[in-house]
Amino acid sequence: MTEQKPLRRRGRPRGGSDSRERIIAAAVDEFGEQGYDGATIRSIAARAGVDSALVHHYFGTKADLFAEAVGIPLRPDIDVPGILAGPRDEVGERLVRYVLEAFEQPDIRRRGVMLMRTAIGSRLTTPLLAGFLSRELIGRIAKQLGVDDAELRATLVASQIAGLLLTRYVLKIAPIAAASVDELVARIGPTVQRYLFG
Amino acid sequence: MTEQKPLRRRGRPRGGSDSRERIIAAAVDEFGEQGYDGATIRSIAARAGVDSALVHHYFGTKADLFAEAVGIPLRPDIDVPGILAGPRDEVGERLVRYVLEAFEQPDIRRRGVMLMRTAIGSRLTTPLLAGFLSRELIGRIAKQLGVDDAELRATLVASQIAGLLLTRYVLKIAPIAAASVDELVARIGPTVQRYLFG
Repeated sequence: MTEQKPLRRRGRPRGGSDSRERIIAAAVDEFGEQGYDGATIRSIAARAGVDSALVHHYFGTKADLFAEAVGIPLRPDIDVPGILAGPRDEVGERLVRYVLEAFEQPDIRRRGVMLMRTAIGSRLTTPLLAGFLSRELIGRIAKQLGVDDAELRATLVASQIAGLLLTRYVLKIAPIAAASVDELVARIGPTVQRYLFG
Repeated sequence: MTEQKPLRRRGRPRGGSDSRERIIAAAVDEFGEQGYDGATIRSIAARAGVDSALVHHYFGTKADLFAEAVGIPLRPDIDVPGILAGPRDEVGERLVRYVLEAFEQPDIRRRGVMLMRTAIGSRLTTPLLAGFLSRELIGRIAKQLGVDDAELRATLVASQIAGLLLTRYVLKIAPIAAASVDELVARIGPTVQRYLFG
C-alpha cells in the first residue's frame, strides 16, 4: 500500500519519531491483513508495542491514520462534507472537479493508481479500499443527505467516480484520458447530481 | 486470464483438437504479453506452430479468439450493437440490464471478476482489458452513434458500467451489491442514456 517497509525491531518501545514510524509500519501491516473495517487502533498499537492513547495522540482517528499509512494526501472524509454543504445545484459538478483536480496532481495520481491496483488486484487487500470508501466517504455522504435511500445514492456516486478514475488513470482509455477536466465536469457532474438529489 | 495452462509440447504440429488447444494456449500467452491491441492472429499462429488460416478457421476474428481465450461467454462486441439498434429511448436501460443480467450468472461473474482483478492489478495485463474495451466495445458503439463526440460518449458509458461492476461485484459495497437488477437499471439507465444521446 505504501513504500514504507514494516519495521520489525525488537526491544523496549521508545517515544519520539521512532514510535511514529513503528505505528505507521504497524498500521500498514494491520490494514493490509485486516482491511479497513477489521483494523483497530488498539490492535495497531499492540503491534507497534505502544499504548492506544499514543496512536490517537500522534494520528487522531482511524481515517487519519489510514491516510498517513497509504501515503495519499487526499482526504475525502474531510473535504466531501464541505462540498455537500455548498450550493445545492452545483454539488455534482464540484464533486467531480474535486476528484479530478486531486488526481491531476502527479503525486496523488501515482499513489491513487497504486492503491486502486493493489486493492482491486488482490482479494486480500480489497476490503481495505471498500471499507474506507463505505465508512468514510459513502457513510458520510449518506448521513448528510438524510433521506431513506441515501446509502444507495452515495454508492451510485462512488460507482461513477470509481469508473471515471479507472478508465482515465488506470486503463487510460483514449477519449476519457485525453478529455479536459472542464469537459468531464460538464459531462459527469449532472450524473452525480441526479444520483444525489434526482 | 483463464484456468487453461499454456501447453508447451514439442514436436510436429498436428491438426484437430490438439491444434485448437495449442492455439488457445498461444492466444493466452500472446494476449497476456502483448495486450489486446498488440496481439495478432499471425503471431498467435506462429506461437502455436500453425497457419494463420487455421486460427481464422477455428476461431474467426481476434475478438472471437479473445473471448475463447479468457473463457468469458459474454460477447459485448456482438450483443451491444443490437441493443443500440433497438428502441432509442430504452437503450440506456437495456444496456445496463444486459450487463447486470450477464454478471448475475455465476460463471460469467466469476470469470469477469477474475479478468477485472487481473487486468487492473497488473500493469502488464492492463492493456488486455483496455484494448478490448476500446476496440470492440467503445469503438463499435461510437461508430453506430455516428456523431462527432461519439468516442467520448461511448467511453463515458464504459466508465459508468466499469464502476458499477467494480463496486457491485469486486468491492461489494453493501447498498449497490444488495440492490436488485431492476433498481439499478432504473437508477443507472438514465445516466447511460444521457451519455449516449443527451
